[in-house]
Amino acid sequence: MKILAIGAHLDDIELACGGTLAKAVKNGHTVKLVVMTDSAYTNFDGTVLRTQDEAFKEGVSAVERLGIKDLVILNFPIKNVPYNGSTVEALDKIMSDFRPDYIFTHWVFDTHQDHKNTAQATISAARYMYNIFMYEPIPPSGRSYAPFRPLAYFDISDSITEKLDSLREHKSQHAKYGEQWIEAVEGRAKIRGFENGCKYAEAFEVVRLSLDI
Amino acid sequence: MKILAIGAHLDDIELACGGTLAKAVKNGHTVKLVVMTDSAYTNFDGTVLRTQDEAFKEGVSAVERLGIKDLVILNFPIKNVPYNGSTVEALDKIMSDFRPDYIFTHWVFDTHQDHKNTAQATISAARYMYNIFMYEPIPPSGRSYAPFRPLAYFDISDSITEKLDSLREHKSQHAKYGEQWIEAVEGRAKIRGFENGCKYAEAFEVVRLSLDI
Amino acid sequence: MKILAIGAHLDDIELACGGTLAKAVKNGHTVKLVVMTDSAYTNFDGTVLRTQDEAFKEGVSAVERLGIKDLVILNFPIKNVPYNGSTVEALDKIMSDFRPDYIFTHWVFDTHQDHKNTAQATISAARYMYNIFMYEPIPPSGRSYAPFRPLAYFDISDSITEKLDSLREHKSQHAKYGEQWIEAVEGRAKIRGFENGCKYAEAFEVVRLSLDI
Amino acid sequence: MKILAIGAHLDDIELACGGTLAKAVKNGHTVKLVVMTDSAYTNFDGTVLRTQDEAFKEGVSAVERLGIKDLVILNFPIKNVPYNGSTVEALDKIMSDFRPDYIFTHWVFDTHQDHKNTAQATISAARYMYNIFMYEPIPPSGRSYAPFRPLAYFDISDSITEKLDSLREHKSQHAKYGEQWIEAVEGRAKIRGFENGCKYAEAFEVVRLSLDI
Amino acid sequence: MKILAIGAHLDDIELACGGTLAKAVKNGHTVKLVVMTDSAYTNFDGTVLRTQDEAFKEGVSAVERLGIKDLVILNFPIKNVPYNGSTVEALDKIMSDFRPDYIFTHWVFDTHQDHKNTAQATISAARYMYNIFMYEPIPPSGRSYAPFRPLAYFDISDSITEKLDSLREHKSQHAKYGEQWIEAVEGRAKIRGFENGCKYAEAFEVVRLSLDI
Amino acid sequence: MKILAIGAHLDDIELACGGTLAKAVKNGHTVKLVVMTDSAYTNFDGTVLRTQDEAFKEGVSAVERLGIKDLVILNFPIKNVPYNGSTVEALDKIMSDFRPDYIFTHWVFDTHQDHKNTAQATISAARYMYNIFMYEPIPPSGRSYAPFRPLAYFDISDSITEKLDSLREHKSQHAKYGEQWIEAVEGRAKIRGFENGCKYAEAFEVVRLSLDI
Repeated sequence: MKILAIGAHLDDIELACGGTLAKAVKNGHTVKLVVMTDSAYTNFDGTVLRTQDEAFKEGVSAVERLGIKDLVILNFPIKNVPYNGSTVEALDKIMSDFRPDYIFTHWVFDTHQDHKNTAQATISAARYMYNIFMYEPIPPSGRSYAPFRPLAYFDISDSITEKLDSLREHKSQHAKYGEQWIEAVEGRAKIRGFENGCKYAEAFEVVRLSLDI
Repeated sequence: MKILAIGAHLDDIELACGGTLAKAVKNGHTVKLVVMTDSAYTNFDGTVLRTQDEAFKEGVSAVERLGIKDLVILNFPIKNVPYNGSTVEALDKIMSDFRPDYIFTHWVFDTHQDHKNTAQATISAARYMYNIFMYEPIPPSGRSYAPFRPLAYFDISDSITEKLDSLREHKSQHAKYGEQWIEAVEGRAKIRGFENGCKYAEAFEVVRLSLDI
Repeated sequence: MKILAIGAHLDDIELACGGTLAKAVKNGHTVKLVVMTDSAYTNFDGTVLRTQDEAFKEGVSAVERLGIKDLVILNFPIKNVPYNGSTVEALDKIMSDFRPDYIFTHWVFDTHQDHKNTAQATISAARYMYNIFMYEPIPPSGRSYAPFRPLAYFDISDSITEKLDSLREHKSQHAKYGEQWIEAVEGRAKIRGFENGCKYAEAFEVVRLSLDI
Repeated sequence: MKILAIGAHLDDIELACGGTLAKAVKNGHTVKLVVMTDSAYTNFDGTVLRTQDEAFKEGVSAVERLGIKDLVILNFPIKNVPYNGSTVEALDKIMSDFRPDYIFTHWVFDTHQDHKNTAQATISAARYMYNIFMYEPIPPSGRSYAPFRPLAYFDISDSITEKLDSLREHKSQHAKYGEQWIEAVEGRAKIRGFENGCKYAEAFEVVRLSLDI
Repeated sequence: MKILAIGAHLDDIELACGGTLAKAVKNGHTVKLVVMTDSAYTNFDGTVLRTQDEAFKEGVSAVERLGIKDLVILNFPIKNVPYNGSTVEALDKIMSDFRPDYIFTHWVFDTHQDHKNTAQATISAARYMYNIFMYEPIPPSGRSYAPFRPLAYFDISDSITEKLDSLREHKSQHAKYGEQWIEAVEGRAKIRGFENGCKYAEAFEVVRLSLDI
Repeated sequence: MKILAIGAHLDDIELACGGTLAKAVKNGHTVKLVVMTDSAYTNFDGTVLRTQDEAFKEGVSAVERLGIKDLVILNFPIKNVPYNGSTVEALDKIMSDFRPDYIFTHWVFDTHQDHKNTAQATISAARYMYNIFMYEPIPPSGRSYAPFRPLAYFDISDSITEKLDSLREHKSQHAKYGEQWIEAVEGRAKIRGFENGCKYAEAFEVVRLSLDI
């Protein structure tokens, strides 16, 4: 199976569906990641939170921890990823070439403008694709004006380690949020796992699925 | 895989997920149907629309057309199927014995009281089950105060014939609604198929899924 | 009565509310169509799906089949129709001049960016208008992250022929999707008709209505 | 046109759609009211808020103020109006005899159990009816766990007087809530009127409409 | 401040808002718990999961761990708690006597019939109360056909220990679900805490609040 | 407590939460207003509805009536307030400096593009803030494709006068809509007050709250 995961920034995908992707890799599936921006992050007051170089190094290390080799970084402007023909066509091209069976993207009601626009551009581009999952947002961006509806679960008990290790590679983020960042992600995986009858899980809201029986 | 489909009345299941179930049977899965009532139907004014005997005969013939052999008919009162401990425990017992992988039931916002209560009892009983689909309602009961959200599609191009043949076995219903009944069901399968990139499909709203990858 | 139908591209309106509009014309109402773009369509890889000239010819023929003479084509950029002051003001001007009783537009959760933005611009512009209908989307764009809620139905049994004939004039689209495109549209009209107690119908989600009694 | 309004208790209908009904009567339509209970009301502690006789007298006077002559009072138990075959069949019989063009009922998310069950029984019974409006709830029962969506407005500028006069006939209710009760109802009619481009209006959430064009 | 927490069974309240209540007690507020059933639990097949006596002992111990002394147990039938006049009046009486400032109850879309009916009865009874919180469900009952919307958070960093200790007093439940039960509850408190800028939190969906400023 | 209210145009804040803010000022809280545009308004046809100077004068007078001294006017373009990095960063800076306890902004489903984008930019910027209220829209912009859910109420009985006086300072708006504008706003405050057990109230939809107990 071919799996395409799309995120606005380096670390979004790892945080939200890193366990599912690491498991897919272990099980022999082909996984491609697309990140919309170079993910350098400067605060409104000019404070540099991570440079382009740091973001790239951290991102590559994190992705490697998940066992993923195919990482594409687009250069849409951070904080200004648009939802229009430019992003839709960029993703349309990638999908037309790669022909993914499963697509993972941001949740469409995520409160970060880059996340929301990436989700919308993905869904627009994926008009001929049939399995689209929106991953659960992680604070600070996820507490929205609409509720997240967990519809599909993947058991990640065998890949939770890879997921958490991957997050630790994002040293700038880890420094910013502290160890609580890791613990919160693990805590969610526990409650989602309990909901799913397993130890750890990730949950997704579904746009649509085409299932075999 | 073991599949459990639950409906309030004989014909509900065939109408809403007959194609998916017929396909499952063809592909070697074990399918069990549970109908909550004997499905005899008398109008408020005393007009008998179908007797218990007619309902049973039509139902058995219809189910046979789908290739399904395992049909259980419970005797909750028609028009008064409750949502309480009695229905929840009856379904709990069936699920505990059968251990279904997939469960199909009514949509919880269906406007027929028996349909709605059956859906709620199913979901309550299925608290340790992980794949629950709510099938799309067919008029006159489906036009609700809440929208149906089609989340999962099954391609039924290879079983549409069995589905429509199955409906024709419900002679009392066919007589009541006329050929338009069949055509409307087929029409919906066409638009759902077009949405799903195939010729005919059935669509479901998902309560929750536990997927492998 | 004066009716204004707004769509992003030539063929959107015909697909979604062609039957209702053709019926309105037959019954003596005044119908104006506004299309936001010239509707020439080039794929991301440069493949021309239809030229501006083809789009125009097909669109004019299609609209004529519905009996509509008043077609306005704006020149907002395809794939990049914005939702901002430019589109809102363009539509505001048209509404202020035409004073429509009924407005038909895209569904606001449609997954094509041009459709969504056209819907939003229409609703913003229509702030002093009182009857706004959002038409049901047709794949590939309609399968959204939110459910469509069919609230108002129009019986189109007497104009289904005009509607389907109109679609056949969109030869480039017909070639792209095949006869299944027509059949899916007809299939939906059948199930919507069955829901509405007639042979064929179109369904709409309502933004708001001001009714007489 | 024939209009059927259904409420759980005497005063519910007047409060929520009295203006629309009074206007309908003025314009020559046939209006029938059905109230599910005798509407005598005793508090949990045995305090009698109104006797059956008081409720009946107030109700008849109130309905007369609206110009309505056809009032049917059913005797389902107050606080225990069920949503099951008994209420659905009682309403089914009335609808089958009366053949209403428009049906008005409670909002299905109203927080009074009698209101909610009446709404659900109405919608179940009305499976072959095509225009169903749910009226806006008035405190104390309306502040629900789901939002009311105002979809259809009727201008009641010419019947607001009848509506408010009708409420004043409910002397026991007026005494209980004080003049603020009247003022709040009038206040809502003003804001709904402003939304609808008129002086006073009532707003409704729609289950479904079948419109002519 | 006076706080009323209502649950269907002994352990529901502790699981969902035990931390908030323990904190309230520490801060000097008056807390009353009402449980609708004696909470003895027998499986559909006759297996006794806990006797009335066990449920009572565990419940009393658990509540003591939270520092709460006022526990009222009603005797509505387990698995058959109704939503009708009997439960609404029982709660109405308690609210009229106690006059709570805050009310905590189940989430209205919880999939256990007793939970759902308790929530609905609470909301009906609380028609003159102004601050109503619905607590987040814990599996197996919470994974519903509607999404939970976390709207209000309470920091429980100082009372997480009491909460988890309280759960351990429910020895029959602890035995049934294992240590994962505690860990999942703690895991959720961590992610809710991260969302709320603190170490541990509980989240609630709000029916309505009346706030001072 | 520090309170930040954000609106797209001069008059939006007064209309929607003027009573709550005036009360906050009376009670000693610090209130800051941020308006995204200079609020000069020219119709699509070139008619000037109010000049920049008029808007400013009216706005300052109106805000003074509420007792608020801290008014910041940003210069994003009217009708084209964007939702992107520019607005998010501008608000992020203000929030980082002011550290508000409560934030009031537009409702995210408001149908004016400036209102919607302001709401979204506020929510994005407020990712480390914990109490966010969306105020109820006033026509012509509020009648949306989604329902407003009133979740939190503030009693404004003691500040309704200031609120209505404040609106009268917006002479250009008052002239445009007439006295009905004031009366509709007052009417809504009455029904919201009745819902909240007081004379006048304002209602808000909550994004999220962090409450103490």
